[in-house]
Amino acid sequence: MKLSEGVEAAIHAALTLAGLEREATMPASALAGQFGQSPSYLLKHLNALTVAGILQSLPGPAGGYRLARLPEAISLLDIVLAVEGPRPAFRCAEIRQRGPAALPVSVFAKPCVINAAMLRAEKAYRAALAHETLDGLMDAHTVQTDPRAVAAGCAFVLQNQRAQKKSKTV
Amino acid sequence: MKLSEGVEAAIHAALTLAGLEREATMPASALAGQFGQSPSYLLKHLNALTVAGILQSLPGPAGGYRLARLPEAISLLDIVLAVEGPRPAFRCAEIRQRGPAALPVSVFAKPCVINAAMLRAEKAYRAALAHETLDGLMDAHTVQTDPRAVAAGCAFVLQNQRAQKKSKTV
Repeated sequence: MKLSEGVEAAIHAALTLAGLEREATMPASALAGQFGQSPSYLLKHLNALTVAGILQSLPGPAGGYRLARLPEAISLLDIVLAVEGPRPAFRCAEIRQRGPAALPVSVFAKPCVINAAMLRAEKAYRAALAHETLDGLMDAHTVQTDPRAVAAGCAFVLQNQRAQKKSKTV
Repeated sequence: MKLSEGVEAAIHAALTLAGLEREATMPASALAGQFGQSPSYLLKHLNALTVAGILQSLPGPAGGYRLARLPEAISLLDIVLAVEGPRPAFRCAEIRQRGPAALPVSVFAKPCVINAAMLRAEKAYRAALAHETLDGLMDAHTVQTDPRAVAAGCAFVLQNQRAQKKSKTV
């Protein structure tokens, strides 16, 4: 079982955007360059995050991406589901119905106990992912990551973010 | 993210074998037929379970498969790892090291906070899977599954299991 590589790219991009100044954006080209990726590859995942309401996309020469809501309101579960889709890892194909006994469909109205058990475990996984927010990751990054990497990341943000004109509406 | 179809097949096979009489076996052909599968398809997963010490394989015309240990000592985690392998779902490719800053490798000695967070969630998933044993699933099956399906399963076991001669050693 394997999460797609897009999950890693999406989380890193979202965490970078969590470090931007208020209302600033960063273009996809810069986000992609930060992790040695092609912009077209990353755009697919940035768009998935935008559709999911995690990011906003501002058009134009001063545009780019930014978080659509506060870092504490964005979890790793939000990002994983946006990239991977909503279906659980275990997808019951109801093989219990394929036996030789040819029982009527009504026999299988109650869920398969195996599917129920796998979904309980999935629920625990999702709850744990929901517990990890961008806010928490930013704190961990500041405290645990090598200061040279933290400094390089800050310099990258300062160099590549695009400040937005003060908006007239709140 | 998707668990392979082999996981469903393996769990169903193991749960069937948990219902056999003491020391009895069931051939792969019967196990496969119970779920409308080809024996060659199921054999791959039965062998993975055998290598993992979950099942035993007895050779010969009276042979077949049976559990290698008690149902309460076999969890869904054991089966998932036997079929899917040991690696976690999130496989950090260290994209944080691919940036333009060209930092020395020593900067990245400490684990990436994103990888650490994803592994925490994986640990919760595995703990939940470890909590689900074949013993618990048998109980749930007896109580929750339609009695007609339970009866058909019992009849199938009685018809297809192979009793073993009483062993001379304990």
